[in-house]
Amino acid sequence: MDGIEISMIRQIMSQAQGCVNLGLGEPGFPFPEVVLDEAHQILDEGRIGYTPNAGLPELCRQIHGYHGALESHKICVTSGSQEALFDVLFTLVGPGDEVLVPNPGYVSYPTVTRLAGGVPICYPLKGDDDFSFSPAALEKRISPRTRVIILSTPSNPTGRCLTLKQLEEVSRIARKRDLVLVSDEIYREIHYTKMPPHSITEASEDAVVLSGVSKMASMTGWRLGWVLGPAEVVDRVTVMHQCSSICASTLSQRAALKLFTPKGRQEVELQRSRHSDNFRFVTEWLDQHLEQPYVRPEGAFYLMLSVHSVDLESLDVSLELLKDGVATIPGSAFGSEGEGYLRVSFAGELSSVEDGLSRLKKGLGRLMLRNTVSVGARPDHPGRTS
Amino acid sequence: MDGIEISMIRQIMSQAQGCVNLGLGEPGFPFPEVVLDEAHQILDEGRIGYTPNAGLPELCRQIHGYHGALESHKICVTSGSQEALFDVLFTLVGPGDEVLVPNPGYVSYPTVTRLAGGVPICYPLKGDDDFSFSPAALEKRISPRTRVIILSTPSNPTGRCLTLKQLEEVSRIARKRDLVLVSDEIYREIHYTKMPPHSITEASEDAVVLSGVSKMASMTGWRLGWVLGPAEVVDRVTVMHQCSSICASTLSQRAALKLFTPKGRQEVELQRSRHSDNFRFVTEWLDQHLEQPYVRPEGAFYLMLSVHSVDLESLDVSLELLKDGVATIPGSAFGSEGEGYLRVSFAGELSSVEDGLSRLKKGLGRLMLRNTVSVGARPDHPGRTS
Repeated sequence: MDGIEISMIRQIMSQAQGCVNLGLGEPGFPFPEVVLDEAHQILDEGRIGYTPNAGLPELCRQIHGYHGALESHKICVTSGSQEALFDVLFTLVGPGDEVLVPNPGYVSYPTVTRLAGGVPICYPLKGDDDFSFSPAALEKRISPRTRVIILSTPSNPTGRCLTLKQLEEVSRIARKRDLVLVSDEIYREIHYTKMPPHSITEASEDAVVLSGVSKMASMTGWRLGWVLGPAEVVDRVTVMHQCSSICASTLSQRAALKLFTPKGRQEVELQRSRHSDNFRFVTEWLDQHLEQPYVRPEGAFYLMLSVHSVDLESLDVSLELLKDGVATIPGSAFGSEGEGYLRVSFAGELSSVEDGLSRLKKGLGRLMLRNTVSVGARPDHPGRTS
Repeated sequence: MDGIEISMIRQIMSQAQGCVNLGLGEPGFPFPEVVLDEAHQILDEGRIGYTPNAGLPELCRQIHGYHGALESHKICVTSGSQEALFDVLFTLVGPGDEVLVPNPGYVSYPTVTRLAGGVPICYPLKGDDDFSFSPAALEKRISPRTRVIILSTPSNPTGRCLTLKQLEEVSRIARKRDLVLVSDEIYREIHYTKMPPHSITEASEDAVVLSGVSKMASMTGWRLGWVLGPAEVVDRVTVMHQCSSICASTLSQRAALKLFTPKGRQEVELQRSRHSDNFRFVTEWLDQHLEQPYVRPEGAFYLMLSVHSVDLESLDVSLELLKDGVATIPGSAFGSEGEGYLRVSFAGELSSVEDGLSRLKKGLGRLMLRNTVSVGARPDHPGRTS
């Protein structure tokens, strides 16, 4: 087992007590009231038993409709989209199979690939190019051992979305090379563009989609996600899911059904508008107060802030900033292409985000000053005279 | 992927609509009121986020105390004891490693072993000997490739418990041969003996225990289980758990905490007494009304009813009984040693169990009668003249 990237985040988070948390991977808002009311009612029935392995049939139908999926597509409801990723990779990846993962990208893509016996091969998203997705750069990494391509749109950590053209291009590549596309779309409801981000389902009939309610409805602790894809894949995923957890929480499944009602859709809209408020606040604040540039996100609730101007590795910048009382995640935790950036989460309450940004500014100022002072004499680097 | 045993149960259950269900693997009682009250309160807080991967520290402490575990033992809270089993086998079992599993035994032991790349090797529990556990019979199956021994006490499907002497003996064997003992004790709170069933923790400091709240508190749909074991094993299990689902449902974790209060313990007692009522009713009913013998369970909520007197395989007996409106699970679904038996679950409401037993009696009577009539002329077997 390999957990280098995981331990980097853990190293930060274990020292982050008392800090303002801009490292968080979850929204800080209350979950929707329709969910609250429904959950109270279900509890009062007094019995919460198993559901079918693939999930409540009515929930599967709603999810199917929500994605505008094809007749030939099926759903398997999982304990969060993390289990969706796990079950899919453990179903599709055999020993030595290569999985193309974005760099920078969600820490679990390479880790779960390795656990499944596969080999993660990174395709780069270049910071110089605002972490844009390049089908050509991806295609270069395909070998005879490649089996799966993981896409992430909107991306954690960059917040960038794939265009329809990029999705069509990568889907053409996958078809040509007989590869399975797995598109992680857990952040799709959270966007700062007029139109919602495109889904791989618009470009491919064979792709597998990972999603869930955690981010769209501030329901991370409810552990409710799903896999959508061609029946022959999802049937096998469902066997894996049955073996790994029987079914997702029944209360979560039943309560989440309400998100697909008109009232539930409205509450998801409301969550989106709260994220948009945060987005506007954070980007305006950064534009005004910070000299460091950042990559403007189109979705999700993170942004990649350049710390190239600080003469330290991003891990050390994050560790230093803890002294200023703010927790961020070093970009290198998401892969080598994340080096030189910090992932700043703006999903918390606005007042807390504002506080965190002030501390960030103060901390970066302090580090920049030290830069200037210590040119030619870096007391923090062992082996050099100070 | 292999799912022969799973499909046997599914074959029955898919045809069981409208039948009285004596096939169920879950209690039919309401979950405890302390859990209900606590869950309502948590919901009203409006926020349900992630917990640490291994589970809420306070819940881990309570579970640790509940098992009377050692300082050196750790807990990882999982999405039900199914995930506990999955994470443990995927952590301990490498390609080609052999895992000793009970026959008859819970369907997932061999299936998850195979998914993890291992080879399940059955050790027999003989129906002639009331499915008693024989350390000697188990020891004979150990090879240089053996890595793990799975114990199940009380057993699903037999309801038999391992004695302290048997646990000590198997723990001596495991130590001698350097094998890991994994003891599935999910049914431990449900027993029909004066004293609770013994736990492997009484005989071994190195064993891994699987348990959870599903059966003890009628909380199957809450998906809350755990792994208890030596820190070096549980730390690796926790990485697997983090990759497979991040954390168990936060609402379930927080509400389950209440089971470890004095009031919660009382409610678990109450659940046990309801199971005991069912046990007394079922055994007395069978003693009075049915000629077929059964193996008297000491725990769990199943019994193995002999159908040797019917001239059909147990799968066919189960399928036939569906016509009489009662669903049971063929013993062969749990392994070859289960052939000749039906697993009868008595965890439902008493009135429903009684109805099911009457249908069972009628059905078995019908099949016995056909036995007599069709000697030398079996119209249901193709290829023979009727």
